Amino acid sequence: MRIAIVGSGALGLFYGAHLQRAGNDVRFLLRRDYDAITKNGLQVRSINGDFHLPVVSGFRQAAEIGPVDLVVIGLKTWANDRYPELVGPLVGPETMILTLQNGLGNEERLAELFGADRVYGGVAYLGANREEPGTVCHLAAGRIILGPIMAHNSGHAEELAGLFSAAGIPCHAVADIQRARWEKLVWNIPFNGLCALMQRPVDVLLASSKTTEIISRIMREVIAAANAQGLREPIPDAYADEMITFTRAMTASYRPSMQIDRAEGRPLELEALIARPLQAGQDRGVDMPLTAALYALLDLP
Amino acid sequence: MRIAIVGSGALGLFYGAHLQRAGNDVRFLLRRDYDAITKNGLQVRSINGDFHLPVVSGFRQAAEIGPVDLVVIGLKTWANDRYPELVGPLVGPETMILTLQNGLGNEERLAELFGADRVYGGVAYLGANREEPGTVCHLAAGRIILGPIMAHNSGHAEELAGLFSAAGIPCHAVADIQRARWEKLVWNIPFNGLCALMQRPVDVLLASSKTTEIISRIMREVIAAANAQGLREPIPDAYADEMITFTRAMTASYRPSMQIDRAEGRPLELEALIARPLQAGQDRGVDMPLTAALYALLDLP
Repeated sequence: MRIAIVGSGALGLFYGAHLQRAGNDVRFLLRRDYDAITKNGLQVRSINGDFHLPVVSGFRQAAEIGPVDLVVIGLKTWANDRYPELVGPLVGPETMILTLQNGLGNEERLAELFGADRVYGGVAYLGANREEPGTVCHLAAGRIILGPIMAHNSGHAEELAGLFSAAGIPCHAVADIQRARWEKLVWNIPFNGLCALMQRPVDVLLASSKTTEIISRIMREVIAAANAQGLREPIPDAYADEMITFTRAMTASYRPSMQIDRAEGRPLELEALIARPLQAGQDRGVDMPLTAALYALLDLP
Repeated sequence: MRIAIVGSGALGLFYGAHLQRAGNDVRFLLRRDYDAITKNGLQVRSINGDFHLPVVSGFRQAAEIGPVDLVVIGLKTWANDRYPELVGPLVGPETMILTLQNGLGNEERLAELFGADRVYGGVAYLGANREEPGTVCHLAAGRIILGPIMAHNSGHAEELAGLFSAAGIPCHAVADIQRARWEKLVWNIPFNGLCALMQRPVDVLLASSKTTEIISRIMREVIAAANAQGLREPIPDAYADEMITFTRAMTASYRPSMQIDRAEGRPLELEALIARPLQAGQDRGVDMPLTAALYALLDLP
């Protein structure tokens, strides 16, 4: 299968490398790592074992790649207004588009631009960082939950899940990808938000019972917002406790992506990760004072 | 009148200087500014006109001062466990004690130690900073609202108010000093808390409509907590809007004391200013999620 990776950060490089290793024709749209990867290939350092791809197809422009069977998007969401330029040239009549980006609004925008029938959403549970150019470091997890926008594409979603599974990535297809997105937001909003705001890793926040209570309350605000969207099956309140227990078991001093972005002075994924879920909740009459406060403070100039 | 000033920060120096200029025998318990003040006196730079006191009675130990008619306390509240050592030697049979400290719990502790009959609480609306040793800079306001702990002392409270008025400090006595304390907390909790947390002055917070909404919600949490304490007259919800309008008119880039304390790595007055009011509200069943979040985040190690 011919696959283009758009957004070759840690996530894009990690999944692209696995798909190539499994025999697919993978083409990476590269910026920072172009020179290193086209010259020396791609090094994956992974908790599941390191591997190296000596020859990797890297490109600077989407037009050089041309139409592919599948586009996998790992862009930071604040770059979504570049979809036409970065994704457009990759789309032919049969092309499928899978966004593994965080937050809300990505599938919808892709569907507007390229038609809902080819768009699939995926939620990636992956702990990975880029290191020096040409190297990606895999720290934790990696599984993907994906699903179609259009219900009649559930068969194709199963095939996509099979593609990742065959590449060694735990992956399964679900009918209601919106629920999976919201489930991840239950974790992302408090932990990405508070770790970024306070510049403290997850374990420092959870070492305080007062902060843990705030995290739990934010989670319950997000669950209420999720359940107001008409999910096929509601997210139970107990999911908040599960997520806190899960996080306590994570790598010590884990820093969510937004914390790292803020520390390094990069733009934050505030819009997709916090503002849109907040608006979606408020539009359905859900009061979300702590989520609103988090957004207000992270968005201060 | 013989007056001792305990806690000679900006507030203690400012009020002590005015009381001395008006003819009182004022004795300052000094630490940082001892050398400068005993040598060169005390310089007041004020929006109402500068003045200099060439001879000032400074002491390093309360025992050197001995009993006085009035003790005025301007200590940071985290030093309250030093009341016995700092205030004890100043108290004779007729001594009155006036605390101008922030937050809740100060009068109660003084009453436990020295008897409620001599204790008065005051709320100071003062913008002042210390500058180089021996100099205090008065930036804004200065008025005091004070009242007795014991209702039968309202006459003495009027006399104390007269003492300050005669020294050029707008001051009046009220029957319910707890209400005045809570009124100030309505301002102090959101502005001291958020400015300290974000390290931004008040005008930056109020330039964002999202942050202004958070400030307003915190104010309404504090008003609800106040009104649950059985004040003689409740604080109306509209007081929140008044305080925001008042703050918009303040000196540009005003930094509340907790912001400065945090920037300079000093301890914060979290206990008296946020934790006690929060506990007082929660004890009466008032839900205060944003105040609790502010406390949790400011108290993170």
